[in-house]
Amino acid sequence: MTARDEALTVDRWTTMAPGRALGAARQPTIHDVARLAHVSIGTVSKALNGNGRVSVETRARVAAVAHKVGYRPNHLAQSLHRGQSFTVGVISNDNFGRFAMPIVEGLEERLAERRISVFMCNATDDPALEARHVEQLLAKRVDGIVVTGRRADRRPPLQVPLAGLPTLYVFSQTDDPEALCLLPDDFGGARLACDHLIKLGRRRIAHVTGPERFESVLLRREGYRAALKAAKLAAPEKICLSGAWSEAWGREALDRLFAGGPAPDAVFCGNDQIARGVTEALRERGLGAPADVAVVGFDNWAVIAEATRPQLTSVDMNLKELGRETGRRLMAMISGERQSGVHRLPCSLVIRESCGAMRQGGA
Amino acid sequence: MTARDEALTVDRWTTMAPGRALGAARQPTIHDVARLAHVSIGTVSKALNGNGRVSVETRARVAAVAHKVGYRPNHLAQSLHRGQSFTVGVISNDNFGRFAMPIVEGLEERLAERRISVFMCNATDDPALEARHVEQLLAKRVDGIVVTGRRADRRPPLQVPLAGLPTLYVFSQTDDPEALCLLPDDFGGARLACDHLIKLGRRRIAHVTGPERFESVLLRREGYRAALKAAKLAAPEKICLSGAWSEAWGREALDRLFAGGPAPDAVFCGNDQIARGVTEALRERGLGAPADVAVVGFDNWAVIAEATRPQLTSVDMNLKELGRETGRRLMAMISGERQSGVHRLPCSLVIRESCGAMRQGGA
Repeated sequence: MTARDEALTVDRWTTMAPGRALGAARQPTIHDVARLAHVSIGTVSKALNGNGRVSVETRARVAAVAHKVGYRPNHLAQSLHRGQSFTVGVISNDNFGRFAMPIVEGLEERLAERRISVFMCNATDDPALEARHVEQLLAKRVDGIVVTGRRADRRPPLQVPLAGLPTLYVFSQTDDPEALCLLPDDFGGARLACDHLIKLGRRRIAHVTGPERFESVLLRREGYRAALKAAKLAAPEKICLSGAWSEAWGREALDRLFAGGPAPDAVFCGNDQIARGVTEALRERGLGAPADVAVVGFDNWAVIAEATRPQLTSVDMNLKELGRETGRRLMAMISGERQSGVHRLPCSLVIRESCGAMRQGGA
Repeated sequence: MTARDEALTVDRWTTMAPGRALGAARQPTIHDVARLAHVSIGTVSKALNGNGRVSVETRARVAAVAHKVGYRPNHLAQSLHRGQSFTVGVISNDNFGRFAMPIVEGLEERLAERRISVFMCNATDDPALEARHVEQLLAKRVDGIVVTGRRADRRPPLQVPLAGLPTLYVFSQTDDPEALCLLPDDFGGARLACDHLIKLGRRRIAHVTGPERFESVLLRREGYRAALKAAKLAAPEKICLSGAWSEAWGREALDRLFAGGPAPDAVFCGNDQIARGVTEALRERGLGAPADVAVVGFDNWAVIAEATRPQLTSVDMNLKELGRETGRRLMAMISGERQSGVHRLPCSLVIRESCGAMRQGGA
């Protein structure tokens, strides 16, 4: 072992916190393994990486020594040599984390299989902060970038000043036709919910949803209309109401639905908070879900859906699975595959009490 | 520039996705900057890092060239030389992200000032997965590890097979007396809430809280009792009720409080969901908050606190600030400072409508 090798074999805790450094704190290096296994450093590398020509016996001896001394390959050094950093950056604009977290969980689960780690950066809709995060991620030579958001709407393309870096948008999309965007199938989710209500015999189905500037609001409304049209049911404008994503709006909308014309026998809601408001307003009128009016929510957010009386049937966007698919596709892109376009993954319907399907023996 | 230098100057996108690689995609290297500025690589390094002896003119020329060609220092290579990776790992056991996310936001904000990035790993209370994450983080030579959780209770120490690596527990704690643990001041938060109710003239203050296996439940109850004792108010056992962290428990507990003995004129609740249940049960009895009974929640979770009628006054644990403090202390530890012990950061009280303080002209 030369002096130069020694110098490269940085024991950084020793360097940084000399007071605490003990012999025991020094991480074993590839040089230690080579010395103890009586082979060259190149052989250790080949043996542990599973590439190059090394005999079975040597491979086993090197692996045994590495295990015994507790040697961990230095990913940083590996990255420089192989040109892969085994890291992926996630730029999230979802502070609150409700939508981003399950996506990141699924992504992480899939990437962990390849020992790829995830850098999380919160950009909080601040383009300057987002640009700094991209700079940082490039400096760390990430293998790819995942962009996610608080809502699945179009955003300007991420400014990555490096052509060819795999970049993927999930629960977020951009106009660049070259970009790959993964989204939940809002249209399909709405159809699931409305087909369920129709199958349960409901005939005057209202829709109470969020602000029209959200693409998901437009897609869910299209799904609602398509389901009603297929069942030859009327969907007059006045029972399709758009407002805020809040319980207060759900209460107000229910009052409007009952103010004029025939009362609905079902309400498909754009999210669970609206559905909770609708359900509470029904109770305050002396009516009940599902007996008088069936209610379906969207998001399947347990905190809301399970606290509502009765518990809400709700559309689940399967965000964790969306995260897993993000991981699969990102790895394909890192391997050099080209992917683009907008892809939508199916939602599912979680049946609870608010539609009456439970009483009637399942959907 | 020697062949070896060229080999180290990995243009990884070219290597990995040859079909897409253009000249434009190649990241400029330190060698390009050196060549164009007519100085050595060492001088570029010293000029850009702000250390070593370099004239003002040279520093300016190098900086101008670096800016012009879009040179980004390669953190991986820097890490190997300096023994610092500019990365910190966060191991979270809070899937849902409600508590972990604001902490990570605050942490990231503070670390970004030093260009340190955050690796997020979800361990989901699985010790084997947690151990794999630690291995991965060590292989990446992180500068420190932050452990966080879904609840602030004691957990086994993180198994880090490397003495001296700065490790910090936030919203999570361990029995190791050497460990540094940062937590919200649950006792103090409860006192804030109860002192507020006392100041508003309430005299029979009940407490409805979560399961007793949570340390936060015990500490908040102590704060409640201390406040009542200081005001010479009675806190009989039967108006201090422990159950689930849910709205359903809040409703049930309110019914119990009214079932026997004199009715309370205030309820301090262990979280916002319980407070919402209490408030709804009051309304269903024809009573109102704050007129008949004042209600205070804990967590200041806007989704619940703002949707409750009336909106909930609630204790805020200041989790983002807790995250910032985590960042500050972690940086001190990375610089070699030794820190240990359990430190609790103050909570604050967010006044809304459920106590009557608004009507009475502020607390």
